[in-house]
Amino acid sequence: MRKNRLRQIWAEGGCAVSGWLAIPSSYSAEGVARQGFDTVVVDLQHGMIDIATAIAMLQAISTTDAVPMVRVPGNEATMIMKALDAGAYGIICPMISTAEDAARLVSACRYPPLGERSFGPARGLLYGGPDYFAHANDVIVTLAMIETSAGLENIDAILEVDGLDGIFIGPNDLSLALGEAPSSDPAAGSRAAAAIDHLLERTQAHRKHAGIFCANGVIGGKRRTAGFDFIAPGNEFNLLVAAARRELEHVRGTEAGRGKGSASGY
Amino acid sequence: MRKNRLRQIWAEGGCAVSGWLAIPSSYSAEGVARQGFDTVVVDLQHGMIDIATAIAMLQAISTTDAVPMVRVPGNEATMIMKALDAGAYGIICPMISTAEDAARLVSACRYPPLGERSFGPARGLLYGGPDYFAHANDVIVTLAMIETSAGLENIDAILEVDGLDGIFIGPNDLSLALGEAPSSDPAAGSRAAAAIDHLLERTQAHRKHAGIFCANGVIGGKRRTAGFDFIAPGNEFNLLVAAARRELEHVRGTEAGRGKGSASGY
Amino acid sequence: MRKNRLRQIWAEGGCAVSGWLAIPSSYSAEGVARQGFDTVVVDLQHGMIDIATAIAMLQAISTTDAVPMVRVPGNEATMIMKALDAGAYGIICPMISTAEDAARLVSACRYPPLGERSFGPARGLLYGGPDYFAHANDVIVTLAMIETSAGLENIDAILEVDGLDGIFIGPNDLSLALGEAPSSDPAAGSRAAAAIDHLLERTQAHRKHAGIFCANGVIGGKRRTAGFDFIAPGNEFNLLVAAARRELEHVRGTEAGRGKGSASGY
Amino acid sequence: MRKNRLRQIWAEGGCAVSGWLAIPSSYSAEGVARQGFDTVVVDLQHGMIDIATAIAMLQAISTTDAVPMVRVPGNEATMIMKALDAGAYGIICPMISTAEDAARLVSACRYPPLGERSFGPARGLLYGGPDYFAHANDVIVTLAMIETSAGLENIDAILEVDGLDGIFIGPNDLSLALGEAPSSDPAAGSRAAAAIDHLLERTQAHRKHAGIFCANGVIGGKRRTAGFDFIAPGNEFNLLVAAARRELEHVRGTEAGRGKGSASGY
Amino acid sequence: MRKNRLRQIWAEGGCAVSGWLAIPSSYSAEGVARQGFDTVVVDLQHGMIDIATAIAMLQAISTTDAVPMVRVPGNEATMIMKALDAGAYGIICPMISTAEDAARLVSACRYPPLGERSFGPARGLLYGGPDYFAHANDVIVTLAMIETSAGLENIDAILEVDGLDGIFIGPNDLSLALGEAPSSDPAAGSRAAAAIDHLLERTQAHRKHAGIFCANGVIGGKRRTAGFDFIAPGNEFNLLVAAARRELEHVRGTEAGRGKGSASGY
Amino acid sequence: MRKNRLRQIWAEGGCAVSGWLAIPSSYSAEGVARQGFDTVVVDLQHGMIDIATAIAMLQAISTTDAVPMVRVPGNEATMIMKALDAGAYGIICPMISTAEDAARLVSACRYPPLGERSFGPARGLLYGGPDYFAHANDVIVTLAMIETSAGLENIDAILEVDGLDGIFIGPNDLSLALGEAPSSDPAAGSRAAAAIDHLLERTQAHRKHAGIFCANGVIGGKRRTAGFDFIAPGNEFNLLVAAARRELEHVRGTEAGRGKGSASGY
Repeated sequence: MRKNRLRQIWAEGGCAVSGWLAIPSSYSAEGVARQGFDTVVVDLQHGMIDIATAIAMLQAISTTDAVPMVRVPGNEATMIMKALDAGAYGIICPMISTAEDAARLVSACRYPPLGERSFGPARGLLYGGPDYFAHANDVIVTLAMIETSAGLENIDAILEVDGLDGIFIGPNDLSLALGEAPSSDPAAGSRAAAAIDHLLERTQAHRKHAGIFCANGVIGGKRRTAGFDFIAPGNEFNLLVAAARRELEHVRGTEAGRGKGSASGY
Repeated sequence: MRKNRLRQIWAEGGCAVSGWLAIPSSYSAEGVARQGFDTVVVDLQHGMIDIATAIAMLQAISTTDAVPMVRVPGNEATMIMKALDAGAYGIICPMISTAEDAARLVSACRYPPLGERSFGPARGLLYGGPDYFAHANDVIVTLAMIETSAGLENIDAILEVDGLDGIFIGPNDLSLALGEAPSSDPAAGSRAAAAIDHLLERTQAHRKHAGIFCANGVIGGKRRTAGFDFIAPGNEFNLLVAAARRELEHVRGTEAGRGKGSASGY
Repeated sequence: MRKNRLRQIWAEGGCAVSGWLAIPSSYSAEGVARQGFDTVVVDLQHGMIDIATAIAMLQAISTTDAVPMVRVPGNEATMIMKALDAGAYGIICPMISTAEDAARLVSACRYPPLGERSFGPARGLLYGGPDYFAHANDVIVTLAMIETSAGLENIDAILEVDGLDGIFIGPNDLSLALGEAPSSDPAAGSRAAAAIDHLLERTQAHRKHAGIFCANGVIGGKRRTAGFDFIAPGNEFNLLVAAARRELEHVRGTEAGRGKGSASGY
Repeated sequence: MRKNRLRQIWAEGGCAVSGWLAIPSSYSAEGVARQGFDTVVVDLQHGMIDIATAIAMLQAISTTDAVPMVRVPGNEATMIMKALDAGAYGIICPMISTAEDAARLVSACRYPPLGERSFGPARGLLYGGPDYFAHANDVIVTLAMIETSAGLENIDAILEVDGLDGIFIGPNDLSLALGEAPSSDPAAGSRAAAAIDHLLERTQAHRKHAGIFCANGVIGGKRRTAGFDFIAPGNEFNLLVAAARRELEHVRGTEAGRGKGSASGY
Repeated sequence: MRKNRLRQIWAEGGCAVSGWLAIPSSYSAEGVARQGFDTVVVDLQHGMIDIATAIAMLQAISTTDAVPMVRVPGNEATMIMKALDAGAYGIICPMISTAEDAARLVSACRYPPLGERSFGPARGLLYGGPDYFAHANDVIVTLAMIETSAGLENIDAILEVDGLDGIFIGPNDLSLALGEAPSSDPAAGSRAAAAIDHLLERTQAHRKHAGIFCANGVIGGKRRTAGFDFIAPGNEFNLLVAAARRELEHVRGTEAGRGKGSASGY
Repeated sequence: MRKNRLRQIWAEGGCAVSGWLAIPSSYSAEGVARQGFDTVVVDLQHGMIDIATAIAMLQAISTTDAVPMVRVPGNEATMIMKALDAGAYGIICPMISTAEDAARLVSACRYPPLGERSFGPARGLLYGGPDYFAHANDVIVTLAMIETSAGLENIDAILEVDGLDGIFIGPNDLSLALGEAPSSDPAAGSRAAAAIDHLLERTQAHRKHAGIFCANGVIGGKRRTAGFDFIAPGNEFNLLVAAARRELEHVRGTEAGRGKGSASGY
């Protein structure tokens, strides 16, 4: 079975940098994957992407060395299994609040007797190879999103779930859960910032992996230095619209005004 | 019938700035259109976009004030008419080399007796309004791409074609046509640079409009200052992959190396 | 954030009339939306529409002043959140039988601390504006479908759920639930007719909003007079096939025979 | 090979009534086809439909007894052949102005030695049966649209083209070609009305078939009585939006006002 | 309402043979359906197919006499109802482990008072006919997949569920559940083989129907002889890739080497 | 720029074996490509595939080592250029009858000054690499289909066209052109068989490459031995339906009857 480069990077103590896709197109997916990312995540939760398009996007990512991953919309076994059958080598699952949640996620990602994944690897077989079944349980990576108060409280129990590779932090939702405004880079001193530090520390204590979504690469670099080993520096839609606005302003000569407002995402 | 803002901008002596779409997605199309562009072009020639997706993209652009335009793949009446029926308010047509070419383009864009456009405005009616037929011949903008040696030679005859609103320059193809390497910003002293100056001068002499594709907004600003009144500062795919690579490099701390190579487009 | 016209209509004591879409096409969606409806509902339950097409349809509706809404297939948070992220300004949710059901629906539609909606507004941001997060909880409309016996029994508890804007009645399912044949216009004296009256009365007593699906506009007008303030006069597929059959019969001169059978829906 | 019911209807002296599709959806296509039409035309010219969706629509039509037909966007052999390979049993081709045009159309529809159609019947084989090749030349129906002044002048030469089954009149374009406003039902005394009468008379003189597009079934019935044997009473998009507006007005009680304006098509 | 041929075959003591679709295309679906299968299953679980494409595939199957069926991804009422509304005449549901599971499945497939299916038959009405509602509860076939240890233990209770027509065995998952390697044709003496025999025997004892997925037609023939009355001899993707590899090897003259390895599925 | 393996195979005196795709799906495309073919052709002429799906299929092929190629529907520069921009490394063009036809084909495939290809390599850049422009003229393979009497007569002039890599024979159309029934394996003694021998001989005399479509691999092996160096042993749709019918017959025990009729293609 094809190796999972993400595991190799981690085994070497490295930090994986991930593209993040919200635009439903296999062309932009291939373009992003081609830039040198270690992994690329197709976002089925907040991305404007459905599973049919996601399959074509996973194929597009598979033309490169980037590891194809999927953020599923929720902790539902049918969609997790479908993403895996489509060739995803990693699953990021939102809103994991308890060890039971995490165990369900892991179970959906693993064939019996370790889990309850149904057999029928489909495109997984094309991407992984004919010995897919023999190794899939070891190759697939599972990351639990910690973004609720309960998830924060239960972090140790969650990290103890066998088969869970680590966590992925959504700073916006985590901020909201802690009663703060959504922020992709919570300010020092905020509850969210403290929670992020705590989550990283606990994850490292459990010798598992900690990922985080960042608004951009500068924040991502800071997170890498702090010890995160899976960094997603912005989704491609936000990068695109910010870049488009910047060029527009350059033509108009209004780029000086940019400092006052934010172009991102709107 | 809904006014064509592009004509209004030109009437006021302004310069329109245009988004340029190569990604087949109505979501990224809406995102780009929402950034404040005056017009947005769906590129059916070099974009990875077919007519079915283009229709959804024109709808997405129509949620904003940006004028929806289409670059057709060639000077074929059936596709030009389909783009117009889909609600395009402007057509950019590649490889116009003679006055006859230009006349055929204009004819496909106009109802009889001025042209040969077939009646059946479809979505054009939804976008333009119930009096579409009465005004469409006056509202639709047509731009001829000058990118061959013949086109360069015949520029005056082309500009004299009644109903043609102006030209649009593709610097890459123009460079190629003149025996130079493709360049989206031909260096001073090159034949392509001279040709661009000449084309602008002739267009202004004919009191028509001159547009040009630019690799980015800085070049676009320079072209605006030079007198071009329709500027497309980069296609969104190139902006996206360059931005994605930049963020990736920020995370890895390798952004210093960027100056040596180009990320764009690959 | 863009205002929700539905709230404005209600604030002025008006009755909103809604288009209802079952055909998976952004072209027919735009056509219907353009006819002057106050809102247009994309039906993900019984419509032949999936979420990917729904996104393009929401964009098409957004080219007009009609408020884009979605009927979700069930009370599942992931799909509700996806519809909202895609720019829906209102959610109609089937089969609400208890206050707990209603509370779950409302929670999925609201950001913390009022609910559990996950942050990542995507196209919602394009449609609503950059201050989407600050106002979304107040802008989004939520309607619970009452179409089970339990829902009928628990109507007061359901209406007391904070954040629920009102109810939407599906007469066919309600008839079925009460042991009668499905009918979109239950006859006077039937249990369904009595239930509809009762539901309207209770909703008004709670000063909330009552919507109902009708087979056509004549029934819709009757419901408006009765006090309903959200009327969906037929889905567009049924309108289309009935109209097509009518024209066919006119050509054949067989339209007199129409009285004997029903063309609708088949 | 499956018989072509259109030929059977004509052999019995009957008049075929045709559905006409502009909405890109196999669901609405099946709905329309199911209403009892003799044939259904997928309109690739002014419909918002591309060839990929057309294939699914032809399949949908094939679930009924209606004969699947395609109006191609122009007289281009590649698209005509693709439509036939996709299972179309009839081709309507716009803008036939000369006998040469008509001969090219017919040639694209017939295998050698009668024509130049390339072999590879694909879905045609599924729909027609394993002996498709042996009979296709006799089964496929070809209709030439007469909608230019030249077409009108050359009508006799066009009708003499061997293998052409008849003509199809587009009253809007014909009106335009004759210097009148586009009208789907030209008024008595107009040049277009006279031309329609003339075209019908010449077609009957050549013992060929005459079809015409009508705005609705009432006009269609009149045309049938006049002798046309192929009637398309309105496209489904216009029927849909008119029906939707009518129901909307019924709810609002504004239907009285309808007489003053036209809802169709906008 | 159109009869369900599957019920007719069973009533005559016959064995239905089913196509099985994993490729998301209405063209291959129609091709397979046209080969003479009694039923064809669109696999939404392990197939690379989403519901939108499944609708077009159901239409394609409906051009033939084969009964259109759907394997849903899981026991979720919303998707089961959507498949039925799309015209499926049979549902195969994975992972039924208890009588409660089976009862939920059956309930989702039946209108009240027998079940909880929501009214809105959509395409079901087109395929089934205008009296769809009156007969649907009797016409639709429901099969429960037995592929867990619990399902095996609870087989009698499951088979006693009123309205369940029978079972469908997935040998791969059943093997896994019993601690053996996945196998589509478990070897004699294995626990899976014994379980299959037992399930068949119990199903026959309950006078219900037993289906099974087979890797190919030879195994399928054996199962038919053994008494199974619903056989799916391989999914079309595996048939395709095996056939493609075989032809490739014939060209290269390497087909002798084929005995050493397996071409299937990879 | 990525090498073209087809050129490498030819340089080593080898014979390339090609998959051939008519089903519009990137999943089946990847499955076929994964079987070990040297090249895979997306058939835009007789395949039920449009350019949008073709792009996703080219991506799917690009996940393997197989060279992605396109058969275009005709000798139209816009579609040829679009296929190349989408990453095709080879073009097969139907109905080349004269040296002028061949020259036009070659011109559309080459950048100036050798040809007239317009610059904008899009996905070609992703697949080929950042130095795409510098090498594309040398890397892209062009094959002219000889399938008309004129093509047969003009074969020497066609083969002399600079930049044309060789020919590809469509035996069915060639048979038809010579007044024989279409056959994918013309019988010895037929005019088509003689023509095929002649075309191969002339191609070898010109030291160019000769490809041919075969109904299956056995015929393909025979052609390879005869000296053809590009073999397409059947399209995947025909392979699929034949395989499906075979398995069906195995279950029913009717496979003996197979000898009497042909399953292929229907």
